[in-house]
Amino acid sequence: MSSVLLLSCPDQPGIVAATAGFIAAARGNIVHAEQHVDRIGDSGEAVFFQRVEFDLPVDGPTPERFLQQFDEVARRFDMGVDLRSTDIATPTAILASRQPHCLYDLLTRWRSGELPIDVRLVISNHDDHADFCRHLGVEFVHLPVEPGSKQSQEDEMRRVLDTAQVDLVVLARYMQILGSAVIDRFPMRIINIHHSFLPAFVGASPYRQAHDRGVKLIGATAHYATAELDDGPIIEQDTAHVTHRDDVKRLTAKGRYLETIVLARAVRAHVEHRVLVHGRKTVVFS
Amino acid sequence: MSSVLLLSCPDQPGIVAATAGFIAAARGNIVHAEQHVDRIGDSGEAVFFQRVEFDLPVDGPTPERFLQQFDEVARRFDMGVDLRSTDIATPTAILASRQPHCLYDLLTRWRSGELPIDVRLVISNHDDHADFCRHLGVEFVHLPVEPGSKQSQEDEMRRVLDTAQVDLVVLARYMQILGSAVIDRFPMRIINIHHSFLPAFVGASPYRQAHDRGVKLIGATAHYATAELDDGPIIEQDTAHVTHRDDVKRLTAKGRYLETIVLARAVRAHVEHRVLVHGRKTVVFS
Amino acid sequence: MSSVLLLSCPDQPGIVAATAGFIAAARGNIVHAEQHVDRIGDSGEAVFFQRVEFDLPVDGPTPERFLQQFDEVARRFDMGVDLRSTDIATPTAILASRQPHCLYDLLTRWRSGELPIDVRLVISNHDDHADFCRHLGVEFVHLPVEPGSKQSQEDEMRRVLDTAQVDLVVLARYMQILGSAVIDRFPMRIINIHHSFLPAFVGASPYRQAHDRGVKLIGATAHYATAELDDGPIIEQDTAHVTHRDDVKRLTAKGRYLETIVLARAVRAHVEHRVLVHGRKTVVFS
Amino acid sequence: MSSVLLLSCPDQPGIVAATAGFIAAARGNIVHAEQHVDRIGDSGEAVFFQRVEFDLPVDGPTPERFLQQFDEVARRFDMGVDLRSTDIATPTAILASRQPHCLYDLLTRWRSGELPIDVRLVISNHDDHADFCRHLGVEFVHLPVEPGSKQSQEDEMRRVLDTAQVDLVVLARYMQILGSAVIDRFPMRIINIHHSFLPAFVGASPYRQAHDRGVKLIGATAHYATAELDDGPIIEQDTAHVTHRDDVKRLTAKGRYLETIVLARAVRAHVEHRVLVHGRKTVVFS
Repeated sequence: MSSVLLLSCPDQPGIVAATAGFIAAARGNIVHAEQHVDRIGDSGEAVFFQRVEFDLPVDGPTPERFLQQFDEVARRFDMGVDLRSTDIATPTAILASRQPHCLYDLLTRWRSGELPIDVRLVISNHDDHADFCRHLGVEFVHLPVEPGSKQSQEDEMRRVLDTAQVDLVVLARYMQILGSAVIDRFPMRIINIHHSFLPAFVGASPYRQAHDRGVKLIGATAHYATAELDDGPIIEQDTAHVTHRDDVKRLTAKGRYLETIVLARAVRAHVEHRVLVHGRKTVVFS
Repeated sequence: MSSVLLLSCPDQPGIVAATAGFIAAARGNIVHAEQHVDRIGDSGEAVFFQRVEFDLPVDGPTPERFLQQFDEVARRFDMGVDLRSTDIATPTAILASRQPHCLYDLLTRWRSGELPIDVRLVISNHDDHADFCRHLGVEFVHLPVEPGSKQSQEDEMRRVLDTAQVDLVVLARYMQILGSAVIDRFPMRIINIHHSFLPAFVGASPYRQAHDRGVKLIGATAHYATAELDDGPIIEQDTAHVTHRDDVKRLTAKGRYLETIVLARAVRAHVEHRVLVHGRKTVVFS
Repeated sequence: MSSVLLLSCPDQPGIVAATAGFIAAARGNIVHAEQHVDRIGDSGEAVFFQRVEFDLPVDGPTPERFLQQFDEVARRFDMGVDLRSTDIATPTAILASRQPHCLYDLLTRWRSGELPIDVRLVISNHDDHADFCRHLGVEFVHLPVEPGSKQSQEDEMRRVLDTAQVDLVVLARYMQILGSAVIDRFPMRIINIHHSFLPAFVGASPYRQAHDRGVKLIGATAHYATAELDDGPIIEQDTAHVTHRDDVKRLTAKGRYLETIVLARAVRAHVEHRVLVHGRKTVVFS
Repeated sequence: MSSVLLLSCPDQPGIVAATAGFIAAARGNIVHAEQHVDRIGDSGEAVFFQRVEFDLPVDGPTPERFLQQFDEVARRFDMGVDLRSTDIATPTAILASRQPHCLYDLLTRWRSGELPIDVRLVISNHDDHADFCRHLGVEFVHLPVEPGSKQSQEDEMRRVLDTAQVDLVVLARYMQILGSAVIDRFPMRIINIHHSFLPAFVGASPYRQAHDRGVKLIGATAHYATAELDDGPIIEQDTAHVTHRDDVKRLTAKGRYLETIVLARAVRAHVEHRVLVHGRKTVVFS
């Protein structure tokens, strides 16, 4: 069994030794491991993060048994612990609206075997992408939002997500604000993407504003969705150079393309179990 | 004589033909030329920008004569016109405070012949860099700012800049706000650099805030200095990837390094006469 | 009508004026134009390249009439001339073998409207992608290569391409060497992609070799296919950083991803009529 | 005391536990640690690499004592061991010829405190940079190469390097081939920089060839110097996009600039003790 152990706790001497000793005693072989001590805030609170990728022998402990036994170490150091298997593709739902770029990109990366996710269903408030999903052999669920129906739509969405037993929800340009019914059900398991600009532009038509301001860069940010809109822990960011040759249409196209690659990278980091969260901050191991 | 003609005007048919015809009639040979029509704002006002790089024969018109004759074309199309020689390195002053990174970088690029500027003097409100400048053979002028002396310091600065006959002022992390005495004297001829973040951080210690927020990118923006602080036309921007491994010190170092390369690129674009300004926007030809 | 005129000829004074004058006389409005004079080889032969994007009035000349009239200018300067319409998506065939990454990427970019191509058919020597193509509504032609059947397969391919009236052939990791039957039919209209390494690795398993050598970059190059394998004019290149964390499998995945984006950019440059060829060299206007 | 322990050995279970246990027993606190298991060659030989950054208490063991005690662990796992202090800037010599770009860049990064090196001297076969070095307060040693004097020049160089007690030699575009007298004295402690192209160009004037071929990228590679020219373990590589607008002069300037940043990054990785070497391959921890 190939496993990844994600740990975080207040820093103190001996953590690495305790963890590595425990895995060695369970006859596990550490393939990769990375630790990081981060000093956060003015007080310089030291937080220890660790990601350990290891193989257990066939006749070794089950994941449940491993975690049970590890509990003693976890308590000693006041650890947050997450154990994940790398042998299983993450069961995933994708939420989209009308724009196809992020949805199509994720679906083809999944279908060509590039991205280790298991897309169980696509949910949309529009039915534009029903045919494309059907052709790719993925279930499409149309959950329209009517005036006054927002709450019932979200309740239905949560029911559908639970039935499909997904572990990850990807907002592939889903243009509705998610309420707490869904957000609270998947803490740090909903990934959102949005464009970013330097400087920031508020109000409508950000690409129009960026064009008229003559910015030389456009950006995209992927983050975990939290109750605070567009303000969850950042997983991945990137920018692309633009020039005066990029009119609003081409600027928008470049922005969309950037969104697809940043979102795909964030999803990859998540399903490769490389992301640890502490407060509003992530540590993304390479 | 190698020259660059920078033009901008409301778009209409026939501009390229008129300009190219004029240069051909003056026996000039166009080496490079680039045009761009930009539609700005919701109204879609069409603005024509052109950069023409051309050689005139030895017995051809002087720059003054050329401009005089070109005036008929310029009036017909309501053009803004700028004629610059590429045979002359731009006379430049660098303003700095305590941080050395941008200043040292520009001076060594100049000294190694990489950047076609003619650094006439360095002005600083501190004297930290006096020795370094002296060693590189560039005049260093110390203009300290005392409480209540801001205005007289600026008046003196303007006098010094005028005496040195500079055409370009580079703010290499000069940590004083420039007043109108200097700003108005060098319209679109003062280049400033500042760091940029996604999202933006207000208040003190932006690198500390960026670290604690776990951003994955830091940025830098070079722009022309105008009366509105940090809001002039953007010349160049770039970002660098950062990770959790970058503590506040390393984040700051990466940010400074990014500032040096973005500032150097902006200065290069300016002195190669590749920047045209329209309102708050630039067109930077490649 | 929106048109692009691509010109190249020996450099001499007056070319820009003649072209711009001609377009103005035809009541065309130049939207963008770019010129470049390149000095090639030790002799410094000066070659003039120009791309002019312009709109003609509804009651203006047809493309045929325009070219006919322009012939006088073209002869005077010994020009190579190409006139293309930007209103029509380029009729395209994609050739693929077993690897799906480039094929799927191009098809989804086309289907989501991001890439202005008109995919008429997909040809493959294997039938792995028949279903995917059918689902996306694009004709799939299976042309297997049996021992001794190479020539007849190529003759059939040429017949199929002619019937579909394609203007562009994209080799999306087509793992057969194309013979002259197809190469000669589409001069500078076949785009190929291959991986590139620093240093170069000859022999089998280049990714294995790159891994064992510890390279920090992998690359991809898109070029026009010519009779000389992998040596036609380069359209686009890029590299990606890799680390020791990338085992052969991940290195290969990163390489494939890079191939998709470099190939897509090259196809975009071609169908936006931004590529001019001179000998073994391209000029790709931005 | 802040220390870095660099380890490599054949992979087997228990290494991380043994190392971490040893450091914990010595009352050290691990600040960062990174492990990597690499499978090299067709046989898939598994090699374990580890970098551990840790603090020892003031009354803890000295480095000598630490290594002495660690020897038992090292023998058990057949480890290569290197212990370095991060409190001391690496004593460094820079070798240069006529081109100033890499030399000036390293000297200013050192002088502005950006790069944690201690430049003890600059050696050159020319005297062009004597003044610049003197102004920056660094010893300059002129060791010309006369016909037939190559061996004696190298012997003298080795004597000078030994006297200065340097730990690192940086070849900042030093255009002489180093013989074994110096190479063997500083195994994996001499860093060289050279340009790289896709495709590779042999013979004179690579930038001229790259221009005439229309390449879209130029590259630079920093590596440890070994007896085999330009073929030592690679530390850092990067590329820059170029276009038809870059004539041979500008291509060369871009290439030089790339060399400075790639060399500076490689030097930084080395002096931050992040580079481990195994055969012809490096592992560079982030």
